[in-house]
Amino acid sequence: MKAYKDMSREELLSEKASLEAQYEEVKTKGLKLDMSRGKPATAQLELSNGMMDVLSSQADMTGEEGVDCRNYGVLDGIAEAKKLLGDMSEVSADNMIIYGNSSLNVMFDTISRSMTHGVCDNTPWCKLDKVKFLCPVPGYDRHFGITEYFGIEMINIPMLATGPDMDMVEEYVNNDPAVKGIWCVPKYSNPQGITYSEETVLRFAHLNPAADDFRIFWDNAYSIHHLYDDDQDFLLEILNECEKAGHPDMVYKFISTSKVTFPGSGVAAVTASKRNLEDFAKHMKTQTIGHDKLNQLRHVRFFKDMDHMREHMRKHADILRPKFEAVLDVLDRELGGLGIGSWTRPKGGYFISFDAMEGCAKAIVAKAKEAGLVMTGAGATFPYGIDPEDSNIRIAPSYPTPEELAVAAEIFVLSVKLVSIDKMIA
Amino acid sequence: MKAYKDMSREELLSEKASLEAQYEEVKTKGLKLDMSRGKPATAQLELSNGMMDVLSSQADMTGEEGVDCRNYGVLDGIAEAKKLLGDMSEVSADNMIIYGNSSLNVMFDTISRSMTHGVCDNTPWCKLDKVKFLCPVPGYDRHFGITEYFGIEMINIPMLATGPDMDMVEEYVNNDPAVKGIWCVPKYSNPQGITYSEETVLRFAHLNPAADDFRIFWDNAYSIHHLYDDDQDFLLEILNECEKAGHPDMVYKFISTSKVTFPGSGVAAVTASKRNLEDFAKHMKTQTIGHDKLNQLRHVRFFKDMDHMREHMRKHADILRPKFEAVLDVLDRELGGLGIGSWTRPKGGYFISFDAMEGCAKAIVAKAKEAGLVMTGAGATFPYGIDPEDSNIRIAPSYPTPEELAVAAEIFVLSVKLVSIDKMIA
Repeated sequence: MKAYKDMSREELLSEKASLEAQYEEVKTKGLKLDMSRGKPATAQLELSNGMMDVLSSQADMTGEEGVDCRNYGVLDGIAEAKKLLGDMSEVSADNMIIYGNSSLNVMFDTISRSMTHGVCDNTPWCKLDKVKFLCPVPGYDRHFGITEYFGIEMINIPMLATGPDMDMVEEYVNNDPAVKGIWCVPKYSNPQGITYSEETVLRFAHLNPAADDFRIFWDNAYSIHHLYDDDQDFLLEILNECEKAGHPDMVYKFISTSKVTFPGSGVAAVTASKRNLEDFAKHMKTQTIGHDKLNQLRHVRFFKDMDHMREHMRKHADILRPKFEAVLDVLDRELGGLGIGSWTRPKGGYFISFDAMEGCAKAIVAKAKEAGLVMTGAGATFPYGIDPEDSNIRIAPSYPTPEELAVAAEIFVLSVKLVSIDKMIA
Repeated sequence: MKAYKDMSREELLSEKASLEAQYEEVKTKGLKLDMSRGKPATAQLELSNGMMDVLSSQADMTGEEGVDCRNYGVLDGIAEAKKLLGDMSEVSADNMIIYGNSSLNVMFDTISRSMTHGVCDNTPWCKLDKVKFLCPVPGYDRHFGITEYFGIEMINIPMLATGPDMDMVEEYVNNDPAVKGIWCVPKYSNPQGITYSEETVLRFAHLNPAADDFRIFWDNAYSIHHLYDDDQDFLLEILNECEKAGHPDMVYKFISTSKVTFPGSGVAAVTASKRNLEDFAKHMKTQTIGHDKLNQLRHVRFFKDMDHMREHMRKHADILRPKFEAVLDVLDRELGGLGIGSWTRPKGGYFISFDAMEGCAKAIVAKAKEAGLVMTGAGATFPYGIDPEDSNIRIAPSYPTPEELAVAAEIFVLSVKLVSIDKMIA
């Protein structure tokens, strides 16, 4: 395939005419396709339907420590849920608090608590002139949404193939006491699918923050969400590394079963040092009478142990893998060699990240929408919704059927080509 | 029975000797009884076991608006849950947001949001020099815990037989712009079991707050929790009254099914004006990916409608009623006419409130504990845990078996008598 930059103006115009004809034809079909959200497909939900049977009216709903899970009591989670989610999080059950249905909610509450009450008896952030967060970009829009909501200044940190640019992270964290946190999706990152390298994790663990209340917000949302059984990324366990480096309190780790069982009806958890967990618990005992223990028990009875959960994740992978490959096939075939975009090939997670030519992302997303394909809004992967290069587009292939995906990917590449040519001949 | 105040010192000393003998005998039994918490008994939990069967692996988990309740989507609750809990709350489904498992959590988050972001675009409370809340006393310790946690100054408002002393409430609310809220349990109040009179509700609706962001926190925790089928309290619906009085935004109403189905695994909701709900939703859309829709659906499928929920509450009443009566029988028989205490006779809710002679509550609770009976800590029913008269004790008869309750009530009255005599002869 000849790169667009090597084409003459005439060649580009001729290419454009042909693409426009294809585009107009697609438009007449009145399609309604959606690649905007990391939403499991119906077939994935079916995998967990059995969880609806493990607690019946006849079931013993007593936890292994003798707690009647139908009644009040137990603030930080039943023992067996701590064990299972501790295994999922690769830490001891002692380092866990089990929460409700949404890890995002736990992160939000953590920031909210830091605003009103401070971190481990430090000054509440609402009393400080300036609070800053580092935001590896592209990243997860809902993380950025939380810090924006609380008026926290967000600083873009470029993502490299190894994770965030650690030179920049160290520079900020070790010198600026206003920097209180960093958002991380360390494994199969949203949206690039990058897993932080061992060196990156070690550099995180060895940060020397200017602020005592600096915390790494380690959102391990895709910890066991591999696409391939024999080709998986490995992420160093950070809690242990922080402890070894003498900074046991520097990290909060968040996980949930939202994309393991049912989004919205899963179980979330925080992994942290004893001191941090006490800080969480102090807040929690005023905030709530406790989380849904029956749903915790339901998860444990369904999975039994980590081996069964891993087995379950293989079934998710079998559904997701062909979808990722379908999109990547179209990208390779249609855009390979054109020099008008690059994309990632994740081994897990929920997204493919696409970088268009500078200044083209918004126009591509608009073009796709016109033909019936909804993408994540351009800019969404950056703080304040502003991608300085207007280049990044997140592709979420999980929800559509493979057939829909093939069509969706075709619309996407058509849109990329058309917008790129327009840019080049402008 | 001769009142203690009419007894001679010798009579009191002789009575004391006899009581002490009984007390020592009870102590040797090494009992472990608990009347400290409004916790449903196991027999009550069994009533809802059927809810565990309505969503099986074979069930259609699609909501009536076509939403797959197993997946992401729907921030403010599925339509049928809004309808059911709207009926429970006596308002339209349009005035509802359905939350997670704990109404306390919703109240906490509401205060937290008011601190960091303000109420309906008013100044965030954390930026004000002083924020005050009115606290009808005795009241619910966890309400007071929330306002204390956020450093809000709490002002005691005496409870009368008709509800809070409305002269005082009007005086504070209509004149002091620092007064931002009042905690209310308007029906079968915690701990007295008082239901606010029609006049009280109307006076609430006609408040003219000095602060634009004053809100009534109307925790209707026991709205359908009657003890008697033919002798129920009636509470005027306040949202409607506030609207009629021209103050539609002045009240937030909270409900939950914690004591209808399973505590900790129920569904909570807020009832409020459109404007207030938008304020809630703005926060919520950053805070969470949505609440547990499967649990909402489970509740709706189990109850079907309000008639069935009322029928279900009659079964709760059949279990609770004899327990209340057992305690009241002992109080009547053992303390009637002695002039050393008074108590309420609620027609619903979870508590009986006991007022001892001034300065005796702490000692009574300690005395009971020594004999193996745990009561709610004296003072817990007041802000900061300080009962200025050291008089009020909350009795929670729901959890123990009737047999345990009979013994527990005997220990309690023994403790009341002993401490009262000590006070009188001191």
